[in-house]
Amino acid sequence: MRSKPILGLTMGDPAGIGPEICLHALREPSVLAVCVPVLFGDARVIQRLSSLESCWSLATEGREGTEKTAASPWRTVSLPEWHEGMTCTGPLLVDLATPDLDAIEPGQISAAAGRAGYRYIEEAVRAALAGSLEAVVTAPIHKEALRLSGVAHPGHTEIFTALTGARRSCMMLYSDKLAVSMVTTHIGYHAVPETLSVERVLTVIELTATAMAVMLGRAPRLGVCGLNPHAGEHGLFGQGEEENFVAPAVAEARRRGIDAAGPLVPDAAFTAGMRKKFDAVVCLYHDQGHIPFKMLAFDTGVNLTLGLPIIRTSVDHGTAFDIAWQGKANPTSLYSATRLAAQLAIARRNKPVP
Amino acid sequence: MRSKPILGLTMGDPAGIGPEICLHALREPSVLAVCVPVLFGDARVIQRLSSLESCWSLATEGREGTEKTAASPWRTVSLPEWHEGMTCTGPLLVDLATPDLDAIEPGQISAAAGRAGYRYIEEAVRAALAGSLEAVVTAPIHKEALRLSGVAHPGHTEIFTALTGARRSCMMLYSDKLAVSMVTTHIGYHAVPETLSVERVLTVIELTATAMAVMLGRAPRLGVCGLNPHAGEHGLFGQGEEENFVAPAVAEARRRGIDAAGPLVPDAAFTAGMRKKFDAVVCLYHDQGHIPFKMLAFDTGVNLTLGLPIIRTSVDHGTAFDIAWQGKANPTSLYSATRLAAQLAIARRNKPVP
Repeated sequence: MRSKPILGLTMGDPAGIGPEICLHALREPSVLAVCVPVLFGDARVIQRLSSLESCWSLATEGREGTEKTAASPWRTVSLPEWHEGMTCTGPLLVDLATPDLDAIEPGQISAAAGRAGYRYIEEAVRAALAGSLEAVVTAPIHKEALRLSGVAHPGHTEIFTALTGARRSCMMLYSDKLAVSMVTTHIGYHAVPETLSVERVLTVIELTATAMAVMLGRAPRLGVCGLNPHAGEHGLFGQGEEENFVAPAVAEARRRGIDAAGPLVPDAAFTAGMRKKFDAVVCLYHDQGHIPFKMLAFDTGVNLTLGLPIIRTSVDHGTAFDIAWQGKANPTSLYSATRLAAQLAIARRNKPVP
Repeated sequence: MRSKPILGLTMGDPAGIGPEICLHALREPSVLAVCVPVLFGDARVIQRLSSLESCWSLATEGREGTEKTAASPWRTVSLPEWHEGMTCTGPLLVDLATPDLDAIEPGQISAAAGRAGYRYIEEAVRAALAGSLEAVVTAPIHKEALRLSGVAHPGHTEIFTALTGARRSCMMLYSDKLAVSMVTTHIGYHAVPETLSVERVLTVIELTATAMAVMLGRAPRLGVCGLNPHAGEHGLFGQGEEENFVAPAVAEARRRGIDAAGPLVPDAAFTAGMRKKFDAVVCLYHDQGHIPFKMLAFDTGVNLTLGLPIIRTSVDHGTAFDIAWQGKANPTSLYSATRLAAQLAIARRNKPVP
């Protein structure tokens, strides 16, 4: 039997709920049973957070309602210590010691917090590419804080794609109830049609097929949505996106041995009956997949980036600034993301990464 | 106590499942308890349909599995007889005696069937405008058959708007679980942004508020969706449609006393938690509303046209050509549509139509 996989957790925007849910994860039995979590974050943020009445129990061995003790359930190391290499046997906090974080306010957008969130990702990706981590699990960042800090990418998917030099990638949302992958993600509604191509749709079909095969242990059945109402109703609505992009990509995928069907009528693709027919549904734009997914798996869904040289999973919610640093955040999605990352890491030890 | 409302049913494309589900409705106790149904269709189609082993029981008093009898549960009259005026006490079939229908094949797109389906609507709308009917309930037509027959409108909503000369109208999908109304409907995905305007969004908010007030008996709480991922995330995605069209329309609606909120983040607007906050959600495009609606109310939803001088409800499914004339069609949505039309007709006797 091999050892448990070592997973990097990134703390997310420190002004959001990321720090809290990560601290929950570092002591969660269902997480610790399947991996060794290494949190990339800032000890100073955790210190400030745990000085608050509502959150102190997160940073100590004691559970909420019990006596406060000095012991924390993880070991803190500096970035140079981490870089020197270490044997990970229990939860670890890699302290990036970001300056200026004392000025950030919980729930407030700031360039400092955006920059810190980006650095956690940078260091975790570096460690994963170097083989020190078997997967990276991300807590939420804030897109506007990121932009203020001068990072050009709109979200995690794009950051990971750039940092790993991936040739092609896509976002997938995964839960027991529904799995959807995205041909386009964080772009405006209007920009979707001009972004479609046979190549891109085919790429996402292939990435989805590979990932689902790893997760299911068998060849998956995939559906691919159309773009227009009623999938264009034979050219009646739209600019022929179904005929021009979706149908040829599905045909080519089938020729390559993938069990793909489409273009599906979008509003029929997510009913209970159709969800039984397909293991995953390829969606052409953000809300086509996110609307049904969030209805079915609001707190438990996992966000995956497919096509990277490393495994990356994430919570599927945002920074929730309105409840940040109040001890109210629900860590369920992070637990799911961490467990799925561990499962994929084990699968990867035998096969190439999805 | 006033008499039960007299409702027109249109048989839809005769090559689809419309004829079957209408025949079900003419003998359904929950329908007959609340209205007198008058079916606008073709006796010849029903004759052909009921000559089939799988469907004969629909046209007779006997239930499936019992002896075939000659008696049918409705009276058949010609269009001239109907125009002369009559006292409706029980189910009626107004036989439009369309020529050429013997040539149509179940499940096949044809101009003849498209034309026939359109005529049923024309006559029913005429009767409703003249006051002979208190509402019109429509079975599904086929958009391509309609186009082949030379009708320029893409669907029922547009046909009813044109035939009644309505100044403004919109589609609503209604069920116990979710009600959504549409700023745009049967247009291509790409055409949505250019079709948005403050005036149009405001119109749909107002029509929705009026209709929901009739149905609920109180002022409704409305949500209004944004267009882009994350509702644009403060201008990060899209062309500012949230700021330019949705926010001003919501502000003006509130100024006019309507309890409206928005722009909502689209993928968060349909979760269980949000559905408790709003009685109806105004959606900017077809699939934004249809995807969540069909997930929650696949067989039971009703399609309404708001803003007409007459009441119009409809099934929320299509012609289902693949199972047409096989006795397999599920009439539940038509029952729901008929009962909702009867409820609205009673409400309208006291108040103006929504």
